[in-house]
Amino acid sequence: MPFNTDVLQAKFERLRSNKLFEILVISIILVSALVIGAKTYPLPPLANQLIVILDWAITLFFLVEISIRFLGESDKRRFFRSGWNVFDTLIVVVSLIPIEDSELALIGRLVRIFRVLRMVSIIPELRTLLNSLMAALPQLGYVMLMMFIIFYIYAAVGTTFFAAINDTLWGDISVSMLTLFRIMTFEDWTDVMYETMAIYPLSWVFYLSFIFLSAFAFLNMIIGIVVNVLEEEHQRQAQAEALASGEPTLAELRDEIRDLKLLLQAQVGRRPAA
Amino acid sequence: MPFNTDVLQAKFERLRSNKLFEILVISIILVSALVIGAKTYPLPPLANQLIVILDWAITLFFLVEISIRFLGESDKRRFFRSGWNVFDTLIVVVSLIPIEDSELALIGRLVRIFRVLRMVSIIPELRTLLNSLMAALPQLGYVMLMMFIIFYIYAAVGTTFFAAINDTLWGDISVSMLTLFRIMTFEDWTDVMYETMAIYPLSWVFYLSFIFLSAFAFLNMIIGIVVNVLEEEHQRQAQAEALASGEPTLAELRDEIRDLKLLLQAQVGRRPAA
Amino acid sequence: MPFNTDVLQAKFERLRSNKLFEILVISIILVSALVIGAKTYPLPPLANQLIVILDWAITLFFLVEISIRFLGESDKRRFFRSGWNVFDTLIVVVSLIPIEDSELALIGRLVRIFRVLRMVSIIPELRTLLNSLMAALPQLGYVMLMMFIIFYIYAAVGTTFFAAINDTLWGDISVSMLTLFRIMTFEDWTDVMYETMAIYPLSWVFYLSFIFLSAFAFLNMIIGIVVNVLEEEHQRQAQAEALASGEPTLAELRDEIRDLKLLLQAQVGRRPAA
Amino acid sequence: MPFNTDVLQAKFERLRSNKLFEILVISIILVSALVIGAKTYPLPPLANQLIVILDWAITLFFLVEISIRFLGESDKRRFFRSGWNVFDTLIVVVSLIPIEDSELALIGRLVRIFRVLRMVSIIPELRTLLNSLMAALPQLGYVMLMMFIIFYIYAAVGTTFFAAINDTLWGDISVSMLTLFRIMTFEDWTDVMYETMAIYPLSWVFYLSFIFLSAFAFLNMIIGIVVNVLEEEHQRQAQAEALASGEPTLAELRDEIRDLKLLLQAQVGRRPAA
Repeated sequence: MPFNTDVLQAKFERLRSNKLFEILVISIILVSALVIGAKTYPLPPLANQLIVILDWAITLFFLVEISIRFLGESDKRRFFRSGWNVFDTLIVVVSLIPIEDSELALIGRLVRIFRVLRMVSIIPELRTLLNSLMAALPQLGYVMLMMFIIFYIYAAVGTTFFAAINDTLWGDISVSMLTLFRIMTFEDWTDVMYETMAIYPLSWVFYLSFIFLSAFAFLNMIIGIVVNVLEEEHQRQAQAEALASGEPTLAELRDEIRDLKLLLQAQVGRRPAA
Repeated sequence: MPFNTDVLQAKFERLRSNKLFEILVISIILVSALVIGAKTYPLPPLANQLIVILDWAITLFFLVEISIRFLGESDKRRFFRSGWNVFDTLIVVVSLIPIEDSELALIGRLVRIFRVLRMVSIIPELRTLLNSLMAALPQLGYVMLMMFIIFYIYAAVGTTFFAAINDTLWGDISVSMLTLFRIMTFEDWTDVMYETMAIYPLSWVFYLSFIFLSAFAFLNMIIGIVVNVLEEEHQRQAQAEALASGEPTLAELRDEIRDLKLLLQAQVGRRPAA
Repeated sequence: MPFNTDVLQAKFERLRSNKLFEILVISIILVSALVIGAKTYPLPPLANQLIVILDWAITLFFLVEISIRFLGESDKRRFFRSGWNVFDTLIVVVSLIPIEDSELALIGRLVRIFRVLRMVSIIPELRTLLNSLMAALPQLGYVMLMMFIIFYIYAAVGTTFFAAINDTLWGDISVSMLTLFRIMTFEDWTDVMYETMAIYPLSWVFYLSFIFLSAFAFLNMIIGIVVNVLEEEHQRQAQAEALASGEPTLAELRDEIRDLKLLLQAQVGRRPAA
Repeated sequence: MPFNTDVLQAKFERLRSNKLFEILVISIILVSALVIGAKTYPLPPLANQLIVILDWAITLFFLVEISIRFLGESDKRRFFRSGWNVFDTLIVVVSLIPIEDSELALIGRLVRIFRVLRMVSIIPELRTLLNSLMAALPQLGYVMLMMFIIFYIYAAVGTTFFAAINDTLWGDISVSMLTLFRIMTFEDWTDVMYETMAIYPLSWVFYLSFIFLSAFAFLNMIIGIVVNVLEEEHQRQAQAEALASGEPTLAELRDEIRDLKLLLQAQVGRRPAA
């Protein structure tokens, strides 16, 4: 019996890394995406029935696929250590909830939509892209925190002064922060400004200083960080290529020079003997 | 007779690489662009007649020019391997279709417009620019795919929730994607948001998360990739210049040091003999 | 007695650099931020009373905290040399002004809002971020001055020609500069343009040249400067890491080679003697 | 007599490079800028008279200043080779035209506005900034040409299809190009699109492809070029500093190694003799 499972596992492992199997999975994800898209159009009842059947077929296929992946993994514990595997399993398990239940229907539909994200877990290049974006997160985190502090302060000041002028835009601190986000994207920000300038003629200082701090200073810092992260990634690749193609490093040069020195010193040391 | 064509070909080849001939071709392309522009203004009948004549003259000139290029090429097969030559030939051939035919009139007019693109095929700097943009495409491709997945998911979610609120903006998945593109460009996106916030007060999460993912994360990645590609191109040029001006590379230094070592080793090897 | 204060100072110094104390301070700042946010919502009278009490408790805590910091500093003069300490002290001192006084109430409320900024003075990563932004200021300063000159000239030209067309947008030079800032952010700039093009059909030259100079040329220079400053910071870190991990520098290589030369010259010098 | 002018010239040359003189000139330019700004506000008649007097005083001062600069220059021909000197002289000469003449009044007023630009010719840092922007122009030139070609083609296509829908936006090729520029800045571009989509439902392809080509591809190329130019400038400075602080270059290392080799070869060559 244990022998039997080992044979099965090896089979599944081979299947898992099979190129054709991968293409099949990608195609099924594409079909599932198209089904999601199709459902948003008005369809004849026959097409609707076809979509329900297709939907179940896709769910079944994903269930089988994730089982193969799980059984094909020699170390069962490592399987759930990968965030993507957990995500895939969750999506498949929740998909099994019958969609007819009106309470859970919405969750079932949303889960079907998020199945498209499985594309990222399947295609390695997209996973790399996401990882390089994640690599920028720690640096971005503090920029975001700084921006949040600026937003919070400006929102508090804005609510203090402008709540009486326009309650929908500056009523409380959360609404004010949404208004400030809108101003940061330059979306009809002059309408907001002209309204408060009618009461406080100097309130342009509030808007312009906010735009300078948020849109110019911090958005540019985000650009700078992303450009840097990409460049670093790039340089690491270039260095790896240079190493592979036999391009020498400074450390190698130093070692060569040290060799020379040893040779010379040996020579000098031997000279008196000569 | 074969001798005769060889002589002709050599003549055409010389003509093709003639600077004056190039300037003439660029001028004719400019004239053809001006004719296209002039046609969009209301003109007296005389001017219209003149334009028809000019148009035929330009078509004829391009036909002659492309023939010279073709006959001036020693390897006839290589001619059609260049995408630009195929493009030029196609534009000229389709231009020969008489514009009076009401069915094909539109195609004839569009082809005449695309003749302006021949500028790119003629001026080498523009071709280089386009190529460096093309060099960024493989990297951009996956960013685009990722963005498309994000658009698709948000469009599906948006249609699910907001189709009942505004059918023209969120009616089906393709219309929703257009609306999301509009939101990414910050074009009156708050109008779209305020409308759905009236029903779902938390829908700002949908819009803000989308803006963060699309406009901030991925648009910045595009900037980063373009900056990187340009920098790389630049460094390659700088290195070529450094090589040309006799600036040594690390590999050359290593070779010099190795020479030294060989010299020393030869010396050491010879010493006992001394 | 002097002994006693020294003991106290050492105690305070230890407290000041205590990790738990820092977390406590950050938590109190967060609570003070939440109190500011809460005050913008309509609250029952009980909650309002609670907030007033909380507000005094926070002010007291900050007073104690800044005293600890001050007493924990061995060199009292150095304390006020740090801009952040001055800022913290000012915020705390002004907070002590009773908020009930209707004249000073506004200042009291604003100071309470700016207490959130103490977050920046406490978290070292945010301070670093702000410093790296400050490092870009001298470079940015001249770009800003250049932009101001361009704004001033365009505003003067705009007022000269367009004041008669729309007095609210182009009435005097300061209003015109605000309008130009709006155009730079692309905020409904075509409405402004179409209005003046009705009288001066060529006024699009004014708007397009301004957009090219401000939005394209100078905003991109700001991006370039921020990217450069971040990259420089980055390279400095990378170099420090390379040094720490024993990666040799060009200067070290040169020294090694010079050692070699000395060895050789010593050998050569000794040779005749041999 | 020639001696006399030489003495005068030396005096003027010293005055010209005097720091105080420079500050005086900058102050006068600032006053002239303030006068221009003041004139855009409604003023009492007395202030208006004062401004007229101030204006003449400034013009006179500039005339004296430019004369000092000219007389202080030893090589009179070189004076007019600098573009900034020509600009300064022109501004001063045209300022002398009496502003009362109603025909030339506008030119007189514009010239007075452009006097603010003298700030750039006086402050060396601004001149450097402008020069580094100029350094990017050749690279930017081809990007601009490419963009113009794309604009022209899209404008021609747009006029062909949409002229019948909205004559003010797509009436002829120049109006269409202005509309396209507006679309590139995302200014109410969806209004333009929704209008044509009512007739041609597929016209979103036209707008989206244009936005991708212009706003994403080419605007990013401009960012890339500016970032590169600034980085290059920066690297040149860093290299100059490294050279000044005695940091060795690869070329120096190579020379050191070659010295070593010569030493060794001399030794080897002498050995047999030994």
